Amino acid sequence: MFMPKPPLDHRDSLPNNNNNNCSDVCRRHLFLILCSMLKVPDHQVAGHRAGDGKLGPLIDDSGKFYKPIQSDGRGSKEVAFYTSVSSYTNIPSHIRRFFPIFHGTKLIEASDGSGQQPHLVLQNVFSGYLNPSIIDIKIGSRTWYPQASEEYIQKCFMKDRETSSLALGFRISGLQIESKGSAFWKPDRKLIRKFTAEEVRLVLRQFVSSNSSADSGVDPDCTFVSTVYGGSGGILAQLLELKEWFEHQTILHFYSCSVLMVYGKESVVKEASSGAEVKLVDFAHVFEGNGVIDHNFLGGLCSLINFISEILTCSDVHTAKASLQDPKNYCYTNCDTQN
Amino acid sequence: MFMPKPPLDHRDSLPNNNNNNCSDVCRRHLFLILCSMLKVPDHQVAGHRAGDGKLGPLIDDSGKFYKPIQSDGRGSKEVAFYTSVSSYTNIPSHIRRFFPIFHGTKLIEASDGSGQQPHLVLQNVFSGYLNPSIIDIKIGSRTWYPQASEEYIQKCFMKDRETSSLALGFRISGLQIESKGSAFWKPDRKLIRKFTAEEVRLVLRQFVSSNSSADSGVDPDCTFVSTVYGGSGGILAQLLELKEWFEHQTILHFYSCSVLMVYGKESVVKEASSGAEVKLVDFAHVFEGNGVIDHNFLGGLCSLINFISEILTCSDVHTAKASLQDPKNYCYTNCDTQN
Repeated sequence: MFMPKPPLDHRDSLPNNNNNNCSDVCRRHLFLILCSMLKVPDHQVAGHRAGDGKLGPLIDDSGKFYKPIQSDGRGSKEVAFYTSVSSYTNIPSHIRRFFPIFHGTKLIEASDGSGQQPHLVLQNVFSGYLNPSIIDIKIGSRTWYPQASEEYIQKCFMKDRETSSLALGFRISGLQIESKGSAFWKPDRKLIRKFTAEEVRLVLRQFVSSNSSADSGVDPDCTFVSTVYGGSGGILAQLLELKEWFEHQTILHFYSCSVLMVYGKESVVKEASSGAEVKLVDFAHVFEGNGVIDHNFLGGLCSLINFISEILTCSDVHTAKASLQDPKNYCYTNCDTQN
Repeated sequence: MFMPKPPLDHRDSLPNNNNNNCSDVCRRHLFLILCSMLKVPDHQVAGHRAGDGKLGPLIDDSGKFYKPIQSDGRGSKEVAFYTSVSSYTNIPSHIRRFFPIFHGTKLIEASDGSGQQPHLVLQNVFSGYLNPSIIDIKIGSRTWYPQASEEYIQKCFMKDRETSSLALGFRISGLQIESKGSAFWKPDRKLIRKFTAEEVRLVLRQFVSSNSSADSGVDPDCTFVSTVYGGSGGILAQLLELKEWFEHQTILHFYSCSVLMVYGKESVVKEASSGAEVKLVDFAHVFEGNGVIDHNFLGGLCSLINFISEILTCSDVHTAKASLQDPKNYCYTNCDTQN
């Protein structure tokens, strides 16, 4: 097994920890062994980040993702979800593949140096990609659930109204788009949070483009649109599979859950196959459906599907009409006149 | 033209009105002529009702429905909707048929005796039915729109949480179900407002049953389920047509808008055809979609569709297994094990 160097933030944070009964020498020894296997993920776009003494997820080189089990109840709810989801025999296998594989829970040295803490052990969904382009999209116009406290409801209610959640039925929570080799365009989260509908549309086009995303003056060329979004194995087809399930499933409601979209530009260029994948992540607020479909998730998912469908359709229009050089035909403005 | 007697509530309300410049004799004359043509609808299940000196809609015998144009802005917004909808050439005709036909606006004697008031003149969607069974379902888990005042948002927010809107993505606003001839079961609106998911499920089964709906001890027999909900022209097929449009249309967002479902039991018995129809009504809160689908309406519509699909599926299961007399097979409990 490849043994990477322990990340600096782990070694730095060790001496300040006094939370367990192991001797300092013993702890240091254990820590160095564990750290030699665990590291801060390179490709995390949303959620709490490890590093600088902060608690966040870690990965190893065998394709596993270690997510700290948050102590405020959310962690245990997510564990309950992963534990119970295998018992739902009525979730078909073609839907199960959208959930990261669950490898149980494990006590590991936490990234904030607070000693051994319980972690969810999950599939690292990015481990198969060299330089993955990733978008994390929180689905649903409403991220709060009826059972929540009034304080939590009001907090989410505000955030849903401030972000694109209310208008679009989803919001982008994080993203990185490969620009040159291992360089990424990774806009600040505060910027992402303020995305308007037009900016979301632009980013979803930049995601499948070969030209620079960081330069706002450059029109995305949508070079990879048909390979990444289109085709029988593309992102749109996967989202439509999910939609078909959400139209009928009444067993689970997913609040504040994200759709991850990931692919590797190199694969598209070298193998003419994007390896594009859709995954569902973040299940700290999943509740029983009690015989009702998750109309909040479904509505948002359909909205995302429509954005992506339009980009695909517009790209066809754009390609076909490019020679006319008529700006009205360009999909960034709006080519949706068939409705 | 058939000239029905003026309704009592009109004649009673006349002498108290002093709001226009017409002399009493002139007004009485005009009023009697108008009233001989206009009457309070027999089959109104939701919204403001005319009668007892109150402002509400009226109908005539030519199949027209006169809806007072509310002065608080909602009326003018609904007029704007009906006026502009004909200009949306990208609304296909198979979708247009879900909107009541618009015959313009007209000054008529208002039902509250306040003199001549502007009214929307619409198709009376119940005029073709002798004793229609009707359900009015307000679609969307959220009845407020982002542009509304904070006071209005909070009012709707409360109501959505108190009713089934939040949980189901829709709420029943009113209903009448024919029980014997021209007798109807028409539960009180306060009762309807408190419907739980199970009660909504029950009512949607009672709607297509031949046995008494008023007696809560009687299990609905779902006699008419395949004719009313099922079939190529049934309610489910019509709702699916609407859904297909809402998955793509980004031109209009419908807040606090209702789906009306109507049919006549007599037609089913005599003609083996229910004449079941779906209509969209109440457009006081319709806004431009600005390139985004109406995920709020779509989510709620999909939820309603799932309720009705389950009743259809369960009825098949019930029919097939009735001889086993196993109460677990009975669809009211839950036959949704395929998800």
